[in-house]
Amino acid sequence: MALIVQKYGGSSVADAEKIKSVARRIAGTKEQGNEVVVVVSAMGDTTDELIRLARQITATPPERELDMLLSTGEMVSSTLMAMALSELGYKAVSLTGAQAGIETDTSYSRARILKVEPKRIVKELEKGYIVIVAGFQGITEDMDITTLGRGGSDTTAVALAAALKAQMCHIYTDVEGVFTADPRLVPDARKLDEIGYEEMLELATLGAKVLHPRAVELGQIYNMPILVASSFSDSPGTIIRGGTAMEVRNRVRGIAHDTNVAKVTVIGVPDRPGIAAAIFEPLAKANISVDTIVQNASINNITDLTFTVARSDLDRAMSLVEPVAKSIGARECASDATLAKVSVVGTGMQNAPGYAAAMFRALYEQGINIQLITTSEIRITCIIAADRVRDALKALHKAFELEQP
Amino acid sequence: MALIVQKYGGSSVADAEKIKSVARRIAGTKEQGNEVVVVVSAMGDTTDELIRLARQITATPPERELDMLLSTGEMVSSTLMAMALSELGYKAVSLTGAQAGIETDTSYSRARILKVEPKRIVKELEKGYIVIVAGFQGITEDMDITTLGRGGSDTTAVALAAALKAQMCHIYTDVEGVFTADPRLVPDARKLDEIGYEEMLELATLGAKVLHPRAVELGQIYNMPILVASSFSDSPGTIIRGGTAMEVRNRVRGIAHDTNVAKVTVIGVPDRPGIAAAIFEPLAKANISVDTIVQNASINNITDLTFTVARSDLDRAMSLVEPVAKSIGARECASDATLAKVSVVGTGMQNAPGYAAAMFRALYEQGINIQLITTSEIRITCIIAADRVRDALKALHKAFELEQP
Repeated sequence: MALIVQKYGGSSVADAEKIKSVARRIAGTKEQGNEVVVVVSAMGDTTDELIRLARQITATPPERELDMLLSTGEMVSSTLMAMALSELGYKAVSLTGAQAGIETDTSYSRARILKVEPKRIVKELEKGYIVIVAGFQGITEDMDITTLGRGGSDTTAVALAAALKAQMCHIYTDVEGVFTADPRLVPDARKLDEIGYEEMLELATLGAKVLHPRAVELGQIYNMPILVASSFSDSPGTIIRGGTAMEVRNRVRGIAHDTNVAKVTVIGVPDRPGIAAAIFEPLAKANISVDTIVQNASINNITDLTFTVARSDLDRAMSLVEPVAKSIGARECASDATLAKVSVVGTGMQNAPGYAAAMFRALYEQGINIQLITTSEIRITCIIAADRVRDALKALHKAFELEQP
Repeated sequence: MALIVQKYGGSSVADAEKIKSVARRIAGTKEQGNEVVVVVSAMGDTTDELIRLARQITATPPERELDMLLSTGEMVSSTLMAMALSELGYKAVSLTGAQAGIETDTSYSRARILKVEPKRIVKELEKGYIVIVAGFQGITEDMDITTLGRGGSDTTAVALAAALKAQMCHIYTDVEGVFTADPRLVPDARKLDEIGYEEMLELATLGAKVLHPRAVELGQIYNMPILVASSFSDSPGTIIRGGTAMEVRNRVRGIAHDTNVAKVTVIGVPDRPGIAAAIFEPLAKANISVDTIVQNASINNITDLTFTVARSDLDRAMSLVEPVAKSIGARECASDATLAKVSVVGTGMQNAPGYAAAMFRALYEQGINIQLITTSEIRITCIIAADRVRDALKALHKAFELEQP
């Protein structure tokens, strides 16, 4: 008998009808002769509503308390799912993160899983139960409840699949799989049947909001195949896995984009040690993620420093950077909130030249200006104006012939 | 330093403003130099809303799942209370029933507390924290979440007070204390400064909805003084405690009433062994509480059997009793849904004659017909028409001179 771990996101369990519909899918997997462990997110907007409730009490809720508050969202959806399966005539039991044995560190709101001790899950599976686990949460050594932060339920699912040596981890969401580009912007975009962990990691990090990079990383470490598919259709989805089939490919696999990008430039920075630290430490302390950082070559010991942040963090970032810029003698600060990232991704790129040039040419032919460029071994990213994203995606999709299998 | 356990009910924590207001009261108790442990119920109608959600999934939710679902209500209110105290500058930590060490049996939806292991609470108190405990819930040996059923949060509070050897347990609710009768019906009703456990037990059981009898019982066993007071005023409330002062009293302490009463009469029942079991076992299995049971003396081996149930259970009770009545050869079944109970309560009554006679006379003088009578050592209860309750209460209050201290 194969063991399958399935995860259903918040939009898949948003109300009673959707929960019942997902229960029927789970029952189907059980009927195919599998043991099934299910991880659920909180229903729809529950997490946001709980945060709103906390903010009515205080602008600065203690993280420990906030985590315990938020953990109730997944408890609610997991018990309802167990009830729905029971209504269909299946034995089902819901478990909190603690009961499921998800042990984490004490970094509230972004806890890391240290260990999974799935004794209770194994016991329930042996008794013939379908096990529903509240995603996104765990417990510390001192029995305090933690949440795993963004992508938490995906991470719970892959971690459980690894600990239980499942045959596969299914991530059900509101998209049909991993596409060569966003199909809403690129009509030719093609769903991939499979993709490697590294490529998926770049795509996930860069804004293909299908699966959180933490979960992909975990899948890679434990070599756990992950199926990403829609909970609203029977389309076969995309399998993320390792293996030789990936190695021989020699081309771009997909194009990611992210329109939540703003740029900050500190102009006329004296180029001496400690300057970068002075600028970025206050941002780190304020929990602002800095993405791309570019520093131009220094001319006469004066340089320009540019970095990107999420658009929603721009005002806070500017208010932190401006006083620092003044204190270190920089000339001025500038910002632009209307930017986007487009990236081409593919493991094949690392051994083959010419991909960067082809990307820049495709953008140039559309008259799209490239503001910043960064690269990794399997990715080339350009920062461009947000209103040119659609054109850029279409042009790149065509240039790299992604419409063809 | 004294340790005080305080409990705040659902109406006291119904929204963010009320939670903040309660937090200020808790802070006041802390400022008086006390260690404080607080037990909270779920906010307002949360529990009912969660039950409604479960019913959208299934008419028969498994009890284990329902308990886990309902337990989230108190988790939410306890974390919000900890946040509110933190916002006021106090160190506060919320604990689930499990974290607080409330160990119960596995009777889901009506679990009994087996043991309280308050190690974690003690540790947090030693660190100077105010501890907020999610009421109404506990955990089994197998780490499954249970709920304590009706009066659960009151019970949590008194059990914790006993386990922690607190100086006193405060139960804050939406009434100002224990009255000689319901002040909405009897304008002369007087708030009692103190009352004994047994008297309170009779009053609580009989519908003075101030404090659940389970909590009173527990207070009596551990001799824990319980203050019942309003969370919306600074009125001193009523203290429930043992002690000699109670023994010497020789009079009625209060009058309770309950208008949620319906009567079922099985007429012409053949009087042979096993008949009562045949009638009441199906009711017990359907979880219908039967209150007063009266069986008339048998004439020619034919008798009438009358019992009362909550009005909301009447239809279900009739549908269970009618086929049984037929099968045992009873003549017919009758019911009346428009009844009420009025009871006079006082430990003094057990050693002094004449209270019953005085009660019956007072009702007779008002032209109120008594349908059933039951008594305990410290209580006399009459079942009367629901629309005469106000007249009955006023007459009894006057007859026993309860307006005078």
